[in-house]
Amino acid sequence: MKSAIYPGSFDPVTNGHLDIIKRSVNIFDEVIIAVLNNNEKSPLFLVQERVNMLKEAVKGIPNVSVEAFSGLLIDFAKQKDVHVIIRGLRAVTDFEYELQIAQGNRKVSGEDLDTIFLTTSLEYAYLSSSTVKEYAKYGVCVKEFVPESIIPLLEKKFKDR
Amino acid sequence: MKSAIYPGSFDPVTNGHLDIIKRSVNIFDEVIIAVLNNNEKSPLFLVQERVNMLKEAVKGIPNVSVEAFSGLLIDFAKQKDVHVIIRGLRAVTDFEYELQIAQGNRKVSGEDLDTIFLTTSLEYAYLSSSTVKEYAKYGVCVKEFVPESIIPLLEKKFKDR
Amino acid sequence: MKSAIYPGSFDPVTNGHLDIIKRSVNIFDEVIIAVLNNNEKSPLFLVQERVNMLKEAVKGIPNVSVEAFSGLLIDFAKQKDVHVIIRGLRAVTDFEYELQIAQGNRKVSGEDLDTIFLTTSLEYAYLSSSTVKEYAKYGVCVKEFVPESIIPLLEKKFKDR
Amino acid sequence: MKSAIYPGSFDPVTNGHLDIIKRSVNIFDEVIIAVLNNNEKSPLFLVQERVNMLKEAVKGIPNVSVEAFSGLLIDFAKQKDVHVIIRGLRAVTDFEYELQIAQGNRKVSGEDLDTIFLTTSLEYAYLSSSTVKEYAKYGVCVKEFVPESIIPLLEKKFKDR
Amino acid sequence: MKSAIYPGSFDPVTNGHLDIIKRSVNIFDEVIIAVLNNNEKSPLFLVQERVNMLKEAVKGIPNVSVEAFSGLLIDFAKQKDVHVIIRGLRAVTDFEYELQIAQGNRKVSGEDLDTIFLTTSLEYAYLSSSTVKEYAKYGVCVKEFVPESIIPLLEKKFKDR
Amino acid sequence: MKSAIYPGSFDPVTNGHLDIIKRSVNIFDEVIIAVLNNNEKSPLFLVQERVNMLKEAVKGIPNVSVEAFSGLLIDFAKQKDVHVIIRGLRAVTDFEYELQIAQGNRKVSGEDLDTIFLTTSLEYAYLSSSTVKEYAKYGVCVKEFVPESIIPLLEKKFKDR
Repeated sequence: MKSAIYPGSFDPVTNGHLDIIKRSVNIFDEVIIAVLNNNEKSPLFLVQERVNMLKEAVKGIPNVSVEAFSGLLIDFAKQKDVHVIIRGLRAVTDFEYELQIAQGNRKVSGEDLDTIFLTTSLEYAYLSSSTVKEYAKYGVCVKEFVPESIIPLLEKKFKDR
Repeated sequence: MKSAIYPGSFDPVTNGHLDIIKRSVNIFDEVIIAVLNNNEKSPLFLVQERVNMLKEAVKGIPNVSVEAFSGLLIDFAKQKDVHVIIRGLRAVTDFEYELQIAQGNRKVSGEDLDTIFLTTSLEYAYLSSSTVKEYAKYGVCVKEFVPESIIPLLEKKFKDR
Repeated sequence: MKSAIYPGSFDPVTNGHLDIIKRSVNIFDEVIIAVLNNNEKSPLFLVQERVNMLKEAVKGIPNVSVEAFSGLLIDFAKQKDVHVIIRGLRAVTDFEYELQIAQGNRKVSGEDLDTIFLTTSLEYAYLSSSTVKEYAKYGVCVKEFVPESIIPLLEKKFKDR
Repeated sequence: MKSAIYPGSFDPVTNGHLDIIKRSVNIFDEVIIAVLNNNEKSPLFLVQERVNMLKEAVKGIPNVSVEAFSGLLIDFAKQKDVHVIIRGLRAVTDFEYELQIAQGNRKVSGEDLDTIFLTTSLEYAYLSSSTVKEYAKYGVCVKEFVPESIIPLLEKKFKDR
Repeated sequence: MKSAIYPGSFDPVTNGHLDIIKRSVNIFDEVIIAVLNNNEKSPLFLVQERVNMLKEAVKGIPNVSVEAFSGLLIDFAKQKDVHVIIRGLRAVTDFEYELQIAQGNRKVSGEDLDTIFLTTSLEYAYLSSSTVKEYAKYGVCVKEFVPESIIPLLEKKFKDR
Repeated sequence: MKSAIYPGSFDPVTNGHLDIIKRSVNIFDEVIIAVLNNNEKSPLFLVQERVNMLKEAVKGIPNVSVEAFSGLLIDFAKQKDVHVIIRGLRAVTDFEYELQIAQGNRKVSGEDLDTIFLTTSLEYAYLSSSTVKEYAKYGVCVKEFVPESIIPLLEKKFKDR
């Protein structure tokens, strides 16, 4: 069985992420979405909130699971016995950064962990979690950018602030 | 079963191509190497020579087959009932070109044909079929750049000219 | 009155070009589409065919005219007494090339000719005249990529060959 | 009448900014310089100081006004009934970021707000507000980089620290 | 005698840095490694620790000296009467940033200080001080990435935290 | 004594090339300008014409010599016992191509031939031999772009055609 990990912060998950997830399950038998517990970067949503959001958003997509992880991705992959990472690429500057990470992971894992890249669908190419948060903060409607279930959670966060 | 096509000119196959092939068979159940019959570009080797070279070079790698194709890649993929293309990326300028091709293929196929990218291993990042031909033309030893079986064929081509 | 020139080969005009034209007339009072007479590159369509195609395609868009030109763009702009060039940008590699041309034109014209860039709409980002010709050559339907009036002309060209 | 907004932090305005402003008034009938009130980034100069600096620097350039704004640029543009944003591009990495912002703004505004790009004149291509501040901090003469009226204000800031 | 300065943070020195140093001494008669005293960025190692690390790491490489510096590089170069800076380039995004710095330094120095670039050897292309620190923090063995003398110092830092 | 080779087509030499040459002699004790005999690319000027042009253009610059070469640069460098190549960089797309060539040369020479890069001065960043030829062909004055001695030779070439 061919498994792969799709790691990220997902703060919050966007329709761009969902697009990558849907295409990944056509390529692999099983996809594990790995939500990084990166408290140092003071995310908008707690890691558990982000895991729950994703679980809700991927309902109905077969062969997907969602988990939180801390530390290095190579350690999480080893623990899961998975040998492929999936990353989405939007742009050239993404590409260079991702390429260095991918090559580092391959080296450090003893060539045991490879990375494949999917290019973001054109309609989501301008989209990132950061711009979604910026829009939501100023009351712009984001229903075209994120799964519907995320919208009340985003609104609540900015009301609470 | 998860299948994928790795298309290219392979004029000639290099160790960089072989690296992508070996990593692809760890990700997919079956990999079809598709050799483009691009006579307009006046390749050094005939398409049938390139197919034979590749068959020799991938001996011992399981679940790999080699075929020639003409025309559009989307038509070849449809005929083979394969929905994933594999491409290797060496650099940023590669990336932009490949990204446009990948998005065009996905659009024209009705989202039926997706492309995944692997990044070339560092030790082959400077390597291309063109530089191999340039070196061979001037008598530089290319045994670190191509499978051993290719070397006498390259030498013969340049002697015959 | 603010005028601008939108130069190109338009071999053939695509929906990506039309998108730039429609957005340009919102920015300028008058837009001149300048079709390069570049016989050296053996275009698919004669310059007069390309001018006619564009005239048909921009029917109904106000304040647009179409003309052929030969030689340097700076000379054509001077003759028309226009001081702004419009260019569409799809990608980073486009950008570098365009930037050098724009800076050369500005220098050689004595800072009399400036260039503004619009970014191609996302839905057309993968689209170029070359890919349209490649698709049409192999019988792929291109109605999503070019104005409808172009389709029979493309078909005729490839039948005649 | 064709109007456009040139937004930025202008902390402080440089000769590179002034170059874009002078070229913009040749293209548009009216240019509004919009100074971002971005207190979170702890700018060197208060927004009102930056507005005053710019007003001084653009004296004598016709059809230019200077205003502060907070929040989203699309909201400011709507309020001013302006449909074009001007941005200067220095480099490829600028380009990718700007392209994403421009496409997001166009999408979120319902295609009501477009962005045009001018390329920075070569003589200012290495220049940014950050490098000016770095030079001024260590006492390097910056009179080639900023309008003369800015120099005593820069010196005062670093003396006060 | 031809001298050059190789500046950086070296927090810590990596095998990629050492590769640049070894190649630089083949090109210049004397190379000064200049360690930036950048306390604002809260480096992992104090500037004096970094100087000591480098002195240890370059033992046996002829014609190299190591010094700390604060403030602007152009001032340090002037004081040393050196007219050439050496920088290593790993990637395109490095390149753009470095190009702007190099052109600024050349301008501000009155064309007295030029910068030459060496490209990082392929085997170190994925390597940076940041990734080394990330790996070391999570207990990944870094002996392929840094000079051996650095390893106990890295381990001690992360144990002390 | 530190020597370096500055290779190129120089068809014709531009002020951008001269800028690199002048800066190179500040860095090296001796600079050999190596003019590529690339008849396949049908240059405008014969290799001997290009050598003569360069000899004229570098008159008065000390420690520079000019020679033609054919075949591989690594072979020419070996024959001259020189271990450093100088290349000028104008842009990111230049950079990627040059990086691959440099790494190939280093590999094939057994790490005996290294390449250093200088960034083109801003005032010449838009300049290439191709644009000079394009301008000259249409009668644009090129005296700001090439050494004065080249101008009558360029004019003669285009009159003869």
